[in-house]
Amino acid sequence: MSETLPNLTALDAVSEMRAGRLSSEALVTACLERIAQTDAQIRAWAHVDPDLALEQAREADRIRKSGRATGALHGVPVGLKDIVDTRDMPTELGTPICAGRRPETDAAIVNRLREAGAVILGKTKTTEFAFAHPTDTANPHDAARTPGGSSSGSAAAVAAGHVPIAMGTQTNGSVIRPASFCGVYGFKPTRGVISRTGILRTSVTLDQVGTFGRSLEDVAVLANVLGGFDPDDPESFARPRPDMLGGARSEPPVEPVFAWFDLPHHDRLDSDAAEGLESVIDALGGQVERFGAAPQLAALVDVHAKIHEYEFCQHLAEIIDEHRARLSPTLEPIVARGLAISRAEYEDALAVKQSAETFFSGHFNDFDAILAPAATGEAPALASGGTGDPVFCTIWTLAGLPAVTLPILVGETGLPIGVQLVGGPEEDDRLLRTASWFQTELARQSEGGAL
Amino acid sequence: MSETLPNLTALDAVSEMRAGRLSSEALVTACLERIAQTDAQIRAWAHVDPDLALEQAREADRIRKSGRATGALHGVPVGLKDIVDTRDMPTELGTPICAGRRPETDAAIVNRLREAGAVILGKTKTTEFAFAHPTDTANPHDAARTPGGSSSGSAAAVAAGHVPIAMGTQTNGSVIRPASFCGVYGFKPTRGVISRTGILRTSVTLDQVGTFGRSLEDVAVLANVLGGFDPDDPESFARPRPDMLGGARSEPPVEPVFAWFDLPHHDRLDSDAAEGLESVIDALGGQVERFGAAPQLAALVDVHAKIHEYEFCQHLAEIIDEHRARLSPTLEPIVARGLAISRAEYEDALAVKQSAETFFSGHFNDFDAILAPAATGEAPALASGGTGDPVFCTIWTLAGLPAVTLPILVGETGLPIGVQLVGGPEEDDRLLRTASWFQTELARQSEGGAL
Repeated sequence: MSETLPNLTALDAVSEMRAGRLSSEALVTACLERIAQTDAQIRAWAHVDPDLALEQAREADRIRKSGRATGALHGVPVGLKDIVDTRDMPTELGTPICAGRRPETDAAIVNRLREAGAVILGKTKTTEFAFAHPTDTANPHDAARTPGGSSSGSAAAVAAGHVPIAMGTQTNGSVIRPASFCGVYGFKPTRGVISRTGILRTSVTLDQVGTFGRSLEDVAVLANVLGGFDPDDPESFARPRPDMLGGARSEPPVEPVFAWFDLPHHDRLDSDAAEGLESVIDALGGQVERFGAAPQLAALVDVHAKIHEYEFCQHLAEIIDEHRARLSPTLEPIVARGLAISRAEYEDALAVKQSAETFFSGHFNDFDAILAPAATGEAPALASGGTGDPVFCTIWTLAGLPAVTLPILVGETGLPIGVQLVGGPEEDDRLLRTASWFQTELARQSEGGAL
Repeated sequence: MSETLPNLTALDAVSEMRAGRLSSEALVTACLERIAQTDAQIRAWAHVDPDLALEQAREADRIRKSGRATGALHGVPVGLKDIVDTRDMPTELGTPICAGRRPETDAAIVNRLREAGAVILGKTKTTEFAFAHPTDTANPHDAARTPGGSSSGSAAAVAAGHVPIAMGTQTNGSVIRPASFCGVYGFKPTRGVISRTGILRTSVTLDQVGTFGRSLEDVAVLANVLGGFDPDDPESFARPRPDMLGGARSEPPVEPVFAWFDLPHHDRLDSDAAEGLESVIDALGGQVERFGAAPQLAALVDVHAKIHEYEFCQHLAEIIDEHRARLSPTLEPIVARGLAISRAEYEDALAVKQSAETFFSGHFNDFDAILAPAATGEAPALASGGTGDPVFCTIWTLAGLPAVTLPILVGETGLPIGVQLVGGPEEDDRLLRTASWFQTELARQSEGGAL
């Protein structure tokens, strides 16, 4: 029994615990055992404190048994990307420069997790400062492949059954891409739904928090728990948030319609991914409208890079000043580029971003979601030295739109490939409702042999 | 129609708005009209900004019409006691010493209200520094009577139909007592459920946030919205919170049982209140167990005063130093007493408080709620110079227990008298479930002529 416990989804675990058939201590123990057995190969974790995790689990059990209130993730272990400040565990930002760093306070989302009864299992590996230089984490489906990045450990940990759910951040493609490579669900809500206070700031404009899970409902419930207004986060908004779990659990009033944009960077798609996406479009038939090459959209990739690299150098100016020689050979040229971007170029880029947001928000009057690749295809080899190409996420992240990837396709070597759906701003519930319909419909057709 | 709109409960207004039959703008306009018509007599408000309120209402309507997420109090006007910091309205703490005070940030609960879609209608009058010196607010049931205090304006505004719901604070009896005097529901959740960050600190140990409404569900939903973990508040706890609205809406699995304590200060009850409570006890028959005089409980009233007065002088030391001559003749002797309490006396009082908490928490294994008076009886005359006796709340506030008052009794001159129910710590949902059963049962017996 305990060997299969780590395969439960978060919401199934919550149900079992509510019914008294499972304790948090048993679940956390099983997850810790799975980690002990397999993390030497996968290397998903920067820090795990079994005693602290078990202490939280026993406290969750005590609360449950006392009949007091339980939370939406009561007793469920969660992994946090190691750029999220925790006062009781190190937070080392994926760089030896910050080895042994111990924050004094918890990030805002950590407080939300504690209030929801979740067990903070540990910190997952992140690329250097959540940018490009890879960790040593292996893809659980093939140890010679990358799990993607920058939320490498979170995606790998969920795929490996170390935890049912984990959070990550996405400044470019750092949630959707690793989720696609690792064959799990990844969800990045609308910019501003989830607070970033206490999380490493790499781009105040672009950084966004997202979730990993092994079901659509799991990425939704974790986003519900993490979401909330925070006046200390400049992108956080003082408005009601969509009920994302409610969205994932509901059915569309009419069959949803999708938009597909033919973008120049689609020539970077692997052939198996391109064919898989075509089969999805075929399966949806008239429910997909294709839009031809849109050069103004392609230009947004450069606009994104300008903002990302400029802001990264601003936010990390002190570290760059003091420790530049210790930056990786991957990050060094990015920093050199970022430092060379002028204030005027940066401000121009921000203005274009603004117009892109306006452009996209109008689109969702006619479509429920944009259908798009999540990544180039199967996870690239670790030997290639990177974490894969984030370009299929860049535009949507820039516009702050909610995006979800579903592990629907299988590549030519049998590895998972995700399919991305992108929604209208603050319509995260509608996006997840559409995603739920989408995966049910494709499964139905697949069973009938149509896909 | 617009004349009766302000009589809607908050949850009825939410339902009407969800169904598209009511706009927030119409509701807020009607509430503002009611205030314009009657607040010259009632004087419940320290500050109302109609333009700002209507702007929030129109924004709430825009969000609703766009199909985006709406909150639990979407478009509902709320009153805030004028010790709650708001960045867009003055916060004057009920004293001329702080006239014109304008905080730079919102209190934590204000952020929660905004996230729930509520409309902050304005600031309600509070006694001087939320302590004893009365405001000029009149009781809406009898303009010659006090509405109670310290949350005088919030209770009066809800009773007068100026707003469906308002919040207040209780350090002794400042929510339950004014609710009883004004004939509305008052609810003070377990200490630590609601954050006090950004609210005037008068006693870090005793200050607790509560809610006023014209239905049990309304005080529950407002408490749900305001509740949440806040690491900046030393009494806030990092655990899941009870679903208070869920409690108010549910039925007990078995008929609840009540405890009644005969306390020495019951000799301060007016005869109509004493008789009314006896009739309630009779109506509940064997479901009430009476406990004889408990001298160790009576001693807690002095313990409370020691903590309250000592901490008040600590927290307000700067103001007392600088402006002592401007304190009211009501507050001056309290401050003189507080300054004379030694650190050792204070620490002894804290230790007794701790043992009282342990004593009470054991009781709720055998009882669903403690039945108790909410106040001495009908609201005293304004001419008496005070806001009424808080003693019937003191012990429960000291122990941090959740408490609710229901406007069930009628005094000899026809004015309302509340009945208080007190629950176990963090069992706010069970308390409200019990309260719901209680009022239904008494109404049933009353219809049958038994009460």
